[in-house]
Amino acid sequence: MGKMLYEGKAKQIFETEKDDEVIVYYKDDATAFNGGKKGTIEDKGVLNNRITEALFTYLSENGIKTHYIKTLSDREQLVKKVSIIPLEVIVRNLAAGSMAKRLGIKEGTPLKTTIFEICLKDDSLGDPMINDTHAVGIGAATFEELREIYAMTDKINDLLKAYFDKIGIILVDFKLEFGKDKDGNILLADEISPDTCRFWDKVTLEKLDKDRFRRDLGNVKGAYEEIMGRMKKI
Amino acid sequence: MGKMLYEGKAKQIFETEKDDEVIVYYKDDATAFNGGKKGTIEDKGVLNNRITEALFTYLSENGIKTHYIKTLSDREQLVKKVSIIPLEVIVRNLAAGSMAKRLGIKEGTPLKTTIFEICLKDDSLGDPMINDTHAVGIGAATFEELREIYAMTDKINDLLKAYFDKIGIILVDFKLEFGKDKDGNILLADEISPDTCRFWDKVTLEKLDKDRFRRDLGNVKGAYEEIMGRMKKI
Repeated sequence: MGKMLYEGKAKQIFETEKDDEVIVYYKDDATAFNGGKKGTIEDKGVLNNRITEALFTYLSENGIKTHYIKTLSDREQLVKKVSIIPLEVIVRNLAAGSMAKRLGIKEGTPLKTTIFEICLKDDSLGDPMINDTHAVGIGAATFEELREIYAMTDKINDLLKAYFDKIGIILVDFKLEFGKDKDGNILLADEISPDTCRFWDKVTLEKLDKDRFRRDLGNVKGAYEEIMGRMKKI
Repeated sequence: MGKMLYEGKAKQIFETEKDDEVIVYYKDDATAFNGGKKGTIEDKGVLNNRITEALFTYLSENGIKTHYIKTLSDREQLVKKVSIIPLEVIVRNLAAGSMAKRLGIKEGTPLKTTIFEICLKDDSLGDPMINDTHAVGIGAATFEELREIYAMTDKINDLLKAYFDKIGIILVDFKLEFGKDKDGNILLADEISPDTCRFWDKVTLEKLDKDRFRRDLGNVKGAYEEIMGRMKKI
């Protein structure tokens, strides 16, 4: 592996011999509340690497352009190098988490339409929620890029809801990140895992995601393993 | 005047003998930071009543449907009774105030596009900023109503920018509220005044609005009078 190019909260990025490919290394570190809570979840890096591999492969087979190339080891993925668009794109199929709290809604409340949120990726500002006119107004994206990102996100939501429904899981909400490759194509980047999604068991409504860590619910690793285990049945 | 139907931070609403008309009474009370700061600005009620009268008349003459019927006294307006759509619609022509702070931008920074924000009118939640999918998702408005509100807001912004430019004032940002009359028509409601707009002198950039109260800049009443005085020249 080459030089480390970037270290995030849950992953490291390393250069390769090719200019347009990098290696993603998945760590066990867990953070929540913009770094206000820190910890480690044993084998999380391995589980999230494998879960992301399976989901990015599934999405790619269904027409979504992603940065994923191949898995190199239990914790390493080879991916296309992209310049990250500085937005977190959040999809909410049910009210939960920070949104439910901000709007005074009970967790699990059905919504009259799917909610799409964007946040500006800026740790020093606490990743503030913005809207499309903010994103364009401050130069974080163009209206055309946003249209493409929302269209991809909507399709990804449909694909993932159907996928998880088959294994008895409600996809409550999730976060995506996108980047542009050297030719300007918008690709799905980052990861899709219990770190970045809310997964509830369809029958028991048990939480099978990072909320177990955020809210000290215990058996965090077990929840990630449960997701991976059910995914292996597909 | 009939029974008081509602008391807000800066205005009271009274019933009339007609079911579909109410009287707005403009108070001198001033609040800021969601009620965290309170005070009185002498004669503000008179000034805001007269400023709103002039601006709503101008907008109405230019094709904007408003709730305004006529002025009854120095502090009272007769308006159409509407059911308020629970959104504050904010237009930002330059970065300032809470938005500049949240996004780490210097006040006065030009924007690559006009920013339109909506906040859910709910004092107990601190009027949280939302986006269109939140508004529809929680039933505060429909996508069709939002389209109409944004179209009206865009036109109002063009009209007000042109108006204030003629009297040497930059319209930095402003807040609007809309309501529906008994036939379901969307009307511009509430007020447009130095309480709800940021006005900067085009040459000196002096603040001529409620920021003088929010930030303890002094001569608050003088700023409101300066706006009224320049408007009389049109």
